[in-house]
Amino acid sequence: MDIRSSFEALDNKLTSCGGLNGGGITRLLYSEAWSNAIHTLKSTLENEGFEARFDSVGNLKGRIEGSKYPDETIMSGSHIDTVVEGGHLDGQFGVLAALVAMQSLKAEHGQPLRSLELLALAEEEGSRFPYAFWGSKNFFNLANKADVSSIADGEGVNFEDAMHEAGFDYRTVDNDFSYIKSFVEVHIEQGKVLESEQKAIGIVNGIVGQKRYTVNLKGEANHAGTTPMGLRKDAVVAFSKIANELTDQARAFGDPLVITFGRVDPVPNTVNVVPGEVTFSIDCRHINQVELNQFAEKIDACIKRVSEEEAVEYDIDLWMDEAPTLMDEQLVSEVKKAAEHVVGSSDCKVMPSGAGHDSQIFAKYIPTAMIFVPSINGVSHNVEEETDIEDLVKGIEVLKQVLYQLAYKE
Amino acid sequence: MDIRSSFEALDNKLTSCGGLNGGGITRLLYSEAWSNAIHTLKSTLENEGFEARFDSVGNLKGRIEGSKYPDETIMSGSHIDTVVEGGHLDGQFGVLAALVAMQSLKAEHGQPLRSLELLALAEEEGSRFPYAFWGSKNFFNLANKADVSSIADGEGVNFEDAMHEAGFDYRTVDNDFSYIKSFVEVHIEQGKVLESEQKAIGIVNGIVGQKRYTVNLKGEANHAGTTPMGLRKDAVVAFSKIANELTDQARAFGDPLVITFGRVDPVPNTVNVVPGEVTFSIDCRHINQVELNQFAEKIDACIKRVSEEEAVEYDIDLWMDEAPTLMDEQLVSEVKKAAEHVVGSSDCKVMPSGAGHDSQIFAKYIPTAMIFVPSINGVSHNVEEETDIEDLVKGIEVLKQVLYQLAYKE
Repeated sequence: MDIRSSFEALDNKLTSCGGLNGGGITRLLYSEAWSNAIHTLKSTLENEGFEARFDSVGNLKGRIEGSKYPDETIMSGSHIDTVVEGGHLDGQFGVLAALVAMQSLKAEHGQPLRSLELLALAEEEGSRFPYAFWGSKNFFNLANKADVSSIADGEGVNFEDAMHEAGFDYRTVDNDFSYIKSFVEVHIEQGKVLESEQKAIGIVNGIVGQKRYTVNLKGEANHAGTTPMGLRKDAVVAFSKIANELTDQARAFGDPLVITFGRVDPVPNTVNVVPGEVTFSIDCRHINQVELNQFAEKIDACIKRVSEEEAVEYDIDLWMDEAPTLMDEQLVSEVKKAAEHVVGSSDCKVMPSGAGHDSQIFAKYIPTAMIFVPSINGVSHNVEEETDIEDLVKGIEVLKQVLYQLAYKE
Repeated sequence: MDIRSSFEALDNKLTSCGGLNGGGITRLLYSEAWSNAIHTLKSTLENEGFEARFDSVGNLKGRIEGSKYPDETIMSGSHIDTVVEGGHLDGQFGVLAALVAMQSLKAEHGQPLRSLELLALAEEEGSRFPYAFWGSKNFFNLANKADVSSIADGEGVNFEDAMHEAGFDYRTVDNDFSYIKSFVEVHIEQGKVLESEQKAIGIVNGIVGQKRYTVNLKGEANHAGTTPMGLRKDAVVAFSKIANELTDQARAFGDPLVITFGRVDPVPNTVNVVPGEVTFSIDCRHINQVELNQFAEKIDACIKRVSEEEAVEYDIDLWMDEAPTLMDEQLVSEVKKAAEHVVGSSDCKVMPSGAGHDSQIFAKYIPTAMIFVPSINGVSHNVEEETDIEDLVKGIEVLKQVLYQLAYKE
């Protein structure tokens, strides 16, 4: 079978579930588009000889039983939901890459020694309801009724009602995941590191830790004309000094540290008033916990020193503090070998993921690895999201080689 | 007569027109509160022996005829309107200071040699309709029907309808102002220069020129986790470098230059997206046109250089470019002499006004000067606006001395 044409046919079929006129997909958890997608996928799996079944919340598994070690299962997949007006690759590509790779292995090599399982996770994005990783957190018995029973979507539909409407319900017994030996997720990079370095395959060694802050600076609102520079307590000036200094420090600290001041809300936000207050966000990420903590100390110190210099009061709220998640070393090394075998070592890059993925949940329980393919201009969460078809095919071929090593070799 | 008790009685009487429960005044042009205020003032003037009359738009004049040089008129006053939830001193104090000073002069010295005229201008703030200086611009035949015939207030009431409702109309013949020899306006400082330097009286030598800009920077919106620092075009980082550098440059340039970045609107303004765009305001003021222009060149150069360094595109819109207005040198020197006579030279400060006032219109046609009294904590345009009663009395006494020199001396 031809990997490219198989993938393109499946991608067209699944993209039609929630597909938008101008390209891209809106496929929110438990929506009609979502139901169409998972039921289309289930019948496709059944037609292709997989044993397909849902868990209680709607995670879909498709299994090819192993001949010799059926209890050792090699799993691959990703999530089936999208953001509002998302692309056709974020999540969906990981599901279809697993399907095409497993089909192709079966066509070429017959039944594997170990079992192969495709996984289409119900939800990862947190785009319909204010809850992310519903799929993978249920997979590992981490999500509970209490987490979602009181939440609703933007139109006021309760989580529970939407779930029941789609034919699913809370799990009543814990899932067993002990039979899974390895999990490999293929995903688009959603950044432009691979593109800018002209690499075809990223071998993900971990998912960055991240700290998110809301910082409030309080100075004094004053008339912009009658208040000399020396009598001001200008919160925006203090912000600009903090953002400027921390950006310089982050650049000097070096990759893969990133820092972002994405949100800036001055008060009163008017041309002729010295801004007496500003609230801004900091998002800081690094793959190494020690270095992330080191930089967090610089953030604290900078805010405190500049606030003192500029005579403003500060409040620092660190509301997200997620540790980095390292991928399984041995599995990463298997993936690297496979990638080098398929595309050559000069076309591969071992790299951290700057974005969160289902794999960060899996890695805590199961040896896990990820394969990245490039994103054109780094665009994602947008209908313009795209990857060259040659790069998509390479990603599938690398996964196929990994699954071959893991499931077909002694 | 006692200046303090006279002022307090008049202030209470007039403040009741539009006075708010928690203190302060809302008195918008042509509103009921405004009508009450000007008619109350007119009958007060008449009771005190002034010849009181309105012009067509509602500017109120109260005249005491001079005995020897009746055609040489010394005028003093300010505006009678307020901002929404404004204080009881902005504008109103200048009107009442003129009234009390003229009453007191007449009581002590009888009829002046030159005529004295009090002026209560209908409108200065631009708070009800999007048009400011309606009073003084009509006084000098600068405002026209075409400027206001299509504007309405926040509740959809047309300017014209409101004016007719209050009993006023467009002027049909030009006002004559050639008979006015000098204009002196008393006003609260609305800043905290006098307070911080412990001065009782400010002698205003000019009103600053101001340039207002809207600057747009366009970079590239990217994922905050997957985009390394070196691959970003971060508009907020570029803004923070510009604001930081220009603030440092303004501080080094020295008083009275001020620069304010009051408005900052990043897009999309979200914690986990590298901001691809930001629109921000710059408000820059100086009393000296040459120095203001020099700093404007620094503004341009800084935006251009930082935009290049940070790989963002810039658009600079200079939408307000008002020249400084100098007060009349000889009249300023008269006011200074009078202030030094009343409060002593150590209690006076010659200073520019950082805010706009009716006097900037007058100064183009008539020798004009201003007297400032301190504002507690610099607060204005707020119900908390206040000045120590001792400082208010000193302001009235200085004006009285100025008017004495101008109207009672040969």
